Amino acid sequence: MTTESQAPAAADPASSPTAALLIIGNEILSGRTQDANLAHIARTLGGLGIPLREVRVVPDLEAEIVTAVNVLRTRYTYLFTTGGIGPTHDDITAASIARAFGVPVVRHPEAQARLERHYAGTGMLSEARLRMADTPAGASLIDNPVSAAPGFQIGNVFVMAGVPVIMQAMLAGLVPRLVGGPPVLSKAVVCGVPEGTLADALRAIQADHPDVDIGSYPAFRQGRVSTSLVLRGTDPARLEAATARVAAMVRALGDEPSVQDGTG
Amino acid sequence: MTTESQAPAAADPASSPTAALLIIGNEILSGRTQDANLAHIARTLGGLGIPLREVRVVPDLEAEIVTAVNVLRTRYTYLFTTGGIGPTHDDITAASIARAFGVPVVRHPEAQARLERHYAGTGMLSEARLRMADTPAGASLIDNPVSAAPGFQIGNVFVMAGVPVIMQAMLAGLVPRLVGGPPVLSKAVVCGVPEGTLADALRAIQADHPDVDIGSYPAFRQGRVSTSLVLRGTDPARLEAATARVAAMVRALGDEPSVQDGTG
Repeated sequence: MTTESQAPAAADPASSPTAALLIIGNEILSGRTQDANLAHIARTLGGLGIPLREVRVVPDLEAEIVTAVNVLRTRYTYLFTTGGIGPTHDDITAASIARAFGVPVVRHPEAQARLERHYAGTGMLSEARLRMADTPAGASLIDNPVSAAPGFQIGNVFVMAGVPVIMQAMLAGLVPRLVGGPPVLSKAVVCGVPEGTLADALRAIQADHPDVDIGSYPAFRQGRVSTSLVLRGTDPARLEAATARVAAMVRALGDEPSVQDGTG
Repeated sequence: MTTESQAPAAADPASSPTAALLIIGNEILSGRTQDANLAHIARTLGGLGIPLREVRVVPDLEAEIVTAVNVLRTRYTYLFTTGGIGPTHDDITAASIARAFGVPVVRHPEAQARLERHYAGTGMLSEARLRMADTPAGASLIDNPVSAAPGFQIGNVFVMAGVPVIMQAMLAGLVPRLVGGPPVLSKAVVCGVPEGTLADALRAIQADHPDVDIGSYPAFRQGRVSTSLVLRGTDPARLEAATARVAAMVRALGDEPSVQDGTG
């Protein structure tokens, strides 16, 4: 049986950065909350040339978080986490990340100062709220322009809030810290040809264009079959060439394709 | 550094079944497609007393799928997968699952018969479509009442389509094969008290009710803070007792709670 540690290594991070996302939270695993962060993070990172290569969702259990963090931060250039950095008992992300790195949790002076300013004059700065200033020793802060309590970065791990509006603000602020690669460009060829009808011709086009990743995604809308053929690559000319062949294939199969840019 | 194989084992499956979900697809990792299956699967399994304990999203790469399948099928009672069982070149789930189990891919006679019936008289039953009848040797079929091409089960692994309407039909059909545990019941206490204000009192309630899992989830709606306190457990009386204490805590903090049943 293959174990994780025997899994193939990621591509050389120096030449081709990669990312993983760890979603921390019982509410996602129970189905109570629909995750709204994965797609946003994926599109943001993709635009920076940092493809998201793996996502995991784990419960609010320290051992599970520690294991996932240590596997993912080793395998990928960057690891992003969402969830578990609030003031309540189920917010155990900071302690778990500290454990993963083998460092103590400390109260971050700048984080404390930000909370003190945010709650100044309200009488609300309880010890529970001050716990949101606790980070692994050596962490740097990630700004939270929405509600003050910061995220943090330690090594190649970026720890963000789970509430989407806060996560999005944190991610926008930390982007300058990331070293991207060539942006991944995409085209979509949408048609009414069923997948099974175009599969053989599409396979041949994929074989001829190994540096363009071609995916085929069926959908059923209003009783009609729609197939989206999505092409991704970093070389604009080669992406264009593969897209033209896919569009010609659709026409040869008797349908008129709709070719769309940058569909993510 | 901790590796996956050193991670703590799941609870004894005989007494407390657990599940993992493996989402297979570049379109999820690129952010092009918003996953719509996780929450549905989580709620369905939760209602059967089979809590979803981990989710992974991996790309359409055989080595990644094989590794994840072998880790997850060992660690949890059941593993469900979505995606990658169509007729195109990027549909590699059946071959990858066969590789994970060390068995060959074979054309399943009953699956072929279903496709032949479905496409009878249309002239559309190409070799590409017949590939959707290929399963790992020893697999049993999962019905697809939407578009005929079946999913399959091998061992404790259930392989389903990625298109939500098909996945939901497949899951509904395979439920009788699952052995559940005590249903997980839930209550939600929704209030306007900010998390930081109730955190200390809530921590004390959680400590007094170790068999009820209490989560706290903030939301910001129309500029107002809302906090959902979600309680889960399998013992109705103990769940009720913990819920009553949480509601009383909210009242003591000056707000009137809204107590909701079965919010998943």
